[in-house]
Amino acid sequence: MASTAGQVIRCKAAVAWEAGKPLVMEEVEVAPPQAMEVRLKVLFTSLCHTDVYFWEAKGQTPLFPRIFGHEASGIVESVGEGVTDLKPGDHVLPVFTGECKECRHCKSEESNMCDLLRINTDRGVMLNDGKTRFSINGKPIYHFVGTSTFSEYTVVHVGCVAKINPEAPLDKVCVLSCGISTGLGATLNVAKPNKGSSVAVFGLGAVGLAAAEGARIAGASRIIGVDLNPKRFEEAKKFGVTEFVNPKDYDKPVQEVIAEMTNGGVDRSVECTGNINAMISAFECVHDGWGVAVLVGVPNKDDAFKTHPMNVLNERTLKGTFFGNYKPRTDLPSVVEKYMNKELEVEKFITHEVTFSEINKAFDYMLAGDGIRCIIRMDA
Amino acid sequence: MASTAGQVIRCKAAVAWEAGKPLVMEEVEVAPPQAMEVRLKVLFTSLCHTDVYFWEAKGQTPLFPRIFGHEASGIVESVGEGVTDLKPGDHVLPVFTGECKECRHCKSEESNMCDLLRINTDRGVMLNDGKTRFSINGKPIYHFVGTSTFSEYTVVHVGCVAKINPEAPLDKVCVLSCGISTGLGATLNVAKPNKGSSVAVFGLGAVGLAAAEGARIAGASRIIGVDLNPKRFEEAKKFGVTEFVNPKDYDKPVQEVIAEMTNGGVDRSVECTGNINAMISAFECVHDGWGVAVLVGVPNKDDAFKTHPMNVLNERTLKGTFFGNYKPRTDLPSVVEKYMNKELEVEKFITHEVTFSEINKAFDYMLAGDGIRCIIRMDA
Repeated sequence: MASTAGQVIRCKAAVAWEAGKPLVMEEVEVAPPQAMEVRLKVLFTSLCHTDVYFWEAKGQTPLFPRIFGHEASGIVESVGEGVTDLKPGDHVLPVFTGECKECRHCKSEESNMCDLLRINTDRGVMLNDGKTRFSINGKPIYHFVGTSTFSEYTVVHVGCVAKINPEAPLDKVCVLSCGISTGLGATLNVAKPNKGSSVAVFGLGAVGLAAAEGARIAGASRIIGVDLNPKRFEEAKKFGVTEFVNPKDYDKPVQEVIAEMTNGGVDRSVECTGNINAMISAFECVHDGWGVAVLVGVPNKDDAFKTHPMNVLNERTLKGTFFGNYKPRTDLPSVVEKYMNKELEVEKFITHEVTFSEINKAFDYMLAGDGIRCIIRMDA
Repeated sequence: MASTAGQVIRCKAAVAWEAGKPLVMEEVEVAPPQAMEVRLKVLFTSLCHTDVYFWEAKGQTPLFPRIFGHEASGIVESVGEGVTDLKPGDHVLPVFTGECKECRHCKSEESNMCDLLRINTDRGVMLNDGKTRFSINGKPIYHFVGTSTFSEYTVVHVGCVAKINPEAPLDKVCVLSCGISTGLGATLNVAKPNKGSSVAVFGLGAVGLAAAEGARIAGASRIIGVDLNPKRFEEAKKFGVTEFVNPKDYDKPVQEVIAEMTNGGVDRSVECTGNINAMISAFECVHDGWGVAVLVGVPNKDDAFKTHPMNVLNERTLKGTFFGNYKPRTDLPSVVEKYMNKELEVEKFITHEVTFSEINKAFDYMLAGDGIRCIIRMDA
């Protein structure tokens, strides 16, 4: 155990005091982990749209002050009571959703939607006692999706921590703890394209590019990227995208454009925008008989997915996925191995790097649509 | 070759001269089979809703005079040029859809929607020359879905003929050429419930009961039958249905009733009514994380399937199937074998039997909702 075990740690954290206002570097107190909790030293974190979305808090109940951050890598500093499969020094990825290994979902081979630890964006406290582990002069600072990695130290439920190969470079694999795995798994675990098949990817942000990367790894021969921003195509080529369709360039629905390009439709599609019309297009652009469409992007509250039922009856499949169907503890280590054995190329997702004190720059890059992932070095 | 090979055969057929009017027994001429065609002696046929639907011709372009009938069994009388895998004397089931073995669908492991021979309810002629093989005093009588089994002899494309075990009783297995296989395959090939799982079946007609039979064969522990007609439950028990839900008995949507009965939803559902609200309920009643809903029933032209996309994103799957995903020539023989080895119980689907001259009684039974399948004996 480190000498800090069992003690409050004082460290730097980037605190969001108000919705949409720049984060403020503060000294926070991080309480020791309680039962089934782990305290991590965060080494690298990156910024994901979900952080920005809840930081802006335009649609949700605002919960402030809060420490955001959920894509990260780090090292176990100490463990709470009952934690047996992690120990100080382990290299880990904290994950915004969990795997208790006890519930029906965890016991099902098909699901990763753990009943106990499934993502909860409204909860700002730990499950064990309903309280925060962060405070500033005794005033609680709320958690975000159980990870709060914009802090040098954080406390996470053991079910939300994946132990990975200690040889994996933490400044690279940190991006595997959310968006990249989400897109990659959507293709590899859910769409499952055959070698030589055609795949359409809607939305060429980080998740969509990871879905394309999955299609490239699976050996798809045509990967059609769909995006409203033509600038995205050049970059997308690095991720295996072979053709580009901008719906704005056509007078007809994009599903018809794709059907014409592919003699009736693509074999698989993956929807990564969350836009309801893109979801419908992604479903209707797959071939009858065998086409599978996978929804990844998160829709708005009042959206309705609508299609003629014959589109379903003609042997198309519509599936949804959450975190690429990966069970965090069981499956993430193998995603890291895919990178270690050079099957998965992670570096190309990393377009920026900033020091922790420059964290607000990462928000600026994302709000400007500049780049894919910005790594935040906690030690710099 | 039979002595009739190459010659016109005169025989009895039940001709529909007008929409909705009783069939009339007529002597018809049946021309010899042309290239890639087979002439069959029909021994048993049964009545399916699809016959009645197109005979009533309420929504479709009426095509009369026509010989209906597509669920049947018979023996090959003669074969046309190029037919190599069938010979006179073979026991067969004619099928309303086909398998050319050459197109992308036939070559795909996932699809049975043959490009060449997929069901076509508007076409009343043979593909080879665009003409009919039936006539009365030279006046053409139209075919129905390429089978027209309400005739002692009929001509069918070789791709629509499944050669079966000659020991199989033709008066029983005739029902496997349409509805029973459709429901059975929807469960066994598409929904694929695990042993011990829960399955909801919407609509307890022949197809729905066959879907339940599939769930029974798969070892489902709970089979929930959903129907607006409470009389159907007693009969449904024979097909493995363990619980019955009548949506009329509740003030809330049936998907909520089922979710409450099953701690969050069934593992699988199969929709066999074609009613759009039942389709939506069938999708929304499956459990998140792993639930699979399979649509079988054919919707109306203007229906829209509508659901909140989060229902998909929460790892539910929506699939559609046509003819239970069976490829007619490749897979139907194995369905017959399931009956021969007593895995599949066919007798309980057969509730009536009439002679060919009494064929209009079969229509009366179906229109009255009386029974499941009525066998029409052609030789009596």
